[in-house]
Amino acid sequence: MSNILVINSGSASLKFQLIDATSEKTILKGKADKLGLPDAWVEFKYAGENIKQNLKSATHTAALKNLFKFMDSRDLTPTIYAVGHRVAHGGELFADSTPITDSVLAKIKSLIPLAPLHNPANVLGIEAVQKINPKLPQVAVFDTAFHATMPPEAYRYAVPEDWYKKHGVRRYGFHGTSYKFITQKTAEILGKKPDKVNLIVAHIGSGASISAIKNGQSIANTMGFTPLAGLPMGTRSGNIDPSVIPFIMQREGLTADEVLSILNRQSGHKATAKVSDDMRDILLAAQAGNAQAALAYDIFVRKCAKYIGGFMTMLPRLDALIFTAGIGENGFETRQDIVQRLEIFGFKLDQKTNRSTIVRDGREGLISAKTSKYQIYTLATNEELMIARDTARIVS
Amino acid sequence: MSNILVINSGSASLKFQLIDATSEKTILKGKADKLGLPDAWVEFKYAGENIKQNLKSATHTAALKNLFKFMDSRDLTPTIYAVGHRVAHGGELFADSTPITDSVLAKIKSLIPLAPLHNPANVLGIEAVQKINPKLPQVAVFDTAFHATMPPEAYRYAVPEDWYKKHGVRRYGFHGTSYKFITQKTAEILGKKPDKVNLIVAHIGSGASISAIKNGQSIANTMGFTPLAGLPMGTRSGNIDPSVIPFIMQREGLTADEVLSILNRQSGHKATAKVSDDMRDILLAAQAGNAQAALAYDIFVRKCAKYIGGFMTMLPRLDALIFTAGIGENGFETRQDIVQRLEIFGFKLDQKTNRSTIVRDGREGLISAKTSKYQIYTLATNEELMIARDTARIVS
Repeated sequence: MSNILVINSGSASLKFQLIDATSEKTILKGKADKLGLPDAWVEFKYAGENIKQNLKSATHTAALKNLFKFMDSRDLTPTIYAVGHRVAHGGELFADSTPITDSVLAKIKSLIPLAPLHNPANVLGIEAVQKINPKLPQVAVFDTAFHATMPPEAYRYAVPEDWYKKHGVRRYGFHGTSYKFITQKTAEILGKKPDKVNLIVAHIGSGASISAIKNGQSIANTMGFTPLAGLPMGTRSGNIDPSVIPFIMQREGLTADEVLSILNRQSGHKATAKVSDDMRDILLAAQAGNAQAALAYDIFVRKCAKYIGGFMTMLPRLDALIFTAGIGENGFETRQDIVQRLEIFGFKLDQKTNRSTIVRDGREGLISAKTSKYQIYTLATNEELMIARDTARIVS
Repeated sequence: MSNILVINSGSASLKFQLIDATSEKTILKGKADKLGLPDAWVEFKYAGENIKQNLKSATHTAALKNLFKFMDSRDLTPTIYAVGHRVAHGGELFADSTPITDSVLAKIKSLIPLAPLHNPANVLGIEAVQKINPKLPQVAVFDTAFHATMPPEAYRYAVPEDWYKKHGVRRYGFHGTSYKFITQKTAEILGKKPDKVNLIVAHIGSGASISAIKNGQSIANTMGFTPLAGLPMGTRSGNIDPSVIPFIMQREGLTADEVLSILNRQSGHKATAKVSDDMRDILLAAQAGNAQAALAYDIFVRKCAKYIGGFMTMLPRLDALIFTAGIGENGFETRQDIVQRLEIFGFKLDQKTNRSTIVRDGREGLISAKTSKYQIYTLATNEELMIARDTARIVS
């Protein structure tokens, strides 16, 4: 009874990890995908084994049944004492992780209008576990909760008040579980209490956002009402002049939802670079002379630096700048190009250390030069572990 | 033949100034308003006189005829050697002011889709002068032209390339005439050539934007495809998550154009503070304890500081930060609250000098403390004079 099962349920996918709450080691991990389709599959990584199975149009419930069957066969099910679910949107209803009750589940459903793609999938995962093992305590860990500390001047838009009060239109911020993990980890590295650290954290991967952390609390995030806002991402535009939507609707004969879908799925690096939506491919293409790829790269680097500089004005003092997530952990050229734009503030990388600090290769840590005015780190994030920690805290 | 007539033609209004191109003194200034309505009026300020007349549903042409009649009566018409028109949108067609020919006028008309409210009014003014005095040379001075130097990574949005190539969707930037004027003025104050100065200029009034100037050229502006983007303003929202538009359309049963109209006319400080859309009233209300006014004020100050910090990352070196336009020239408390957030970078005001430097009271200049890492100025902008200068340069 020492393990937490962590579930991240998407619209057609299901990621899971079994984590020992004491040692914080991952016992089992895996993923199901293409759920509902004939070629649905699931993969387990356990004790050196790597097992892939066809799931034949399995639903989320069938996939989770399959997971429990696998865990039964390895005597793992009895070791689980709670299940932690990633839930995308907690709105203004949840400022922390919470045990899942009927009333909590109803609230998560009530937030579906704010996250129409994600919250229904999260609900599917929760209900499936309820069916399979109704006695297992379940905890919801919200991607928005860590940002509940943002002050009103950070989360309110200058739009009619009714849009906020009646419809919940405000900035929520996302990637909260990652920011919470990185804040705790950085505090430990700096030898400070988490509520004493002032950080800027760049969680930059295929999805990308940046946050300012003051006294261990989020006070700013580049994402907004939805994860579309802020930085350009793999396929998302990030911020654009809102006037573009009505203009393009008229010009291209599209509905607002169609334009929004293009902004979420056909924009970002993919639209600009064309060769790929992955920053690794884009950088290689740019280095080989592809002008469109170079433009996508420059837009991204410029905006990352811009937000970091902007967020510094919200802090009385900065303890460290942290890079995390796919690009932040591995893209040493991108870190270098971002930090170069921050030299006006006194940031300076140790070039050699930066180049050799790649999380994918098992290396993380301090990458700033001794002469840098601020410390700069590359740190591996671990949202699953943060969900396990929160779940353990809530059920204890 | 030493004077330039400067015309800024709006949808129902017409502002004009007669400026001596040599002494740069204003000879005559005035405004017509409510054009097309029964209570249309015009006002002239000339040689100590202040004359207001009813114009009885006058059109732009009738109002301009009235202006020429007034100038005839004071023997001013023969002193005019050229007319300079403010034109809102030059798109990608105009990177500088230009003599107005039939082909130029056709191009200005072709840009109406990008500025449906402003360019048609500008065309009205140009055509009216052509009718009244066809031999007078006319020059178009574009509000976008100074930003033509922005690099692609500043002006391209991460959206489908067709939106840019076919429909012109990109960042243009506005208030260009003001930025050009302030760049020249600051260079003179600093004793440098205009092409050697690196500045951040906050043109903050009822309309508000911020620009980064590198080697005398604009490399960034907070406004975007339209003047809606960037900072929250009197009635404009500034940047919001674009997803809000489709969401509110559905929730409130509005068309995209209706939502856009609300974002332009019923948002910004007006929506948040409620008491007023004017920062002076809002600040007074906030100081008297009005929480909504305080929120509107805090949102504005926070965003101004954020953009200034962000734009610093685009400059290798900063020569000065300039505040201009209504709030920037007169709102010493707002300057103080913005600069306080910049102290992390070493900005520091001389509190006493800042409080006494109010352009409305005839005072402008340096307001930073001797210990400030960067110089900070409050300078009066003068878009009409810049239009006169450009007109004189182009016709000579």
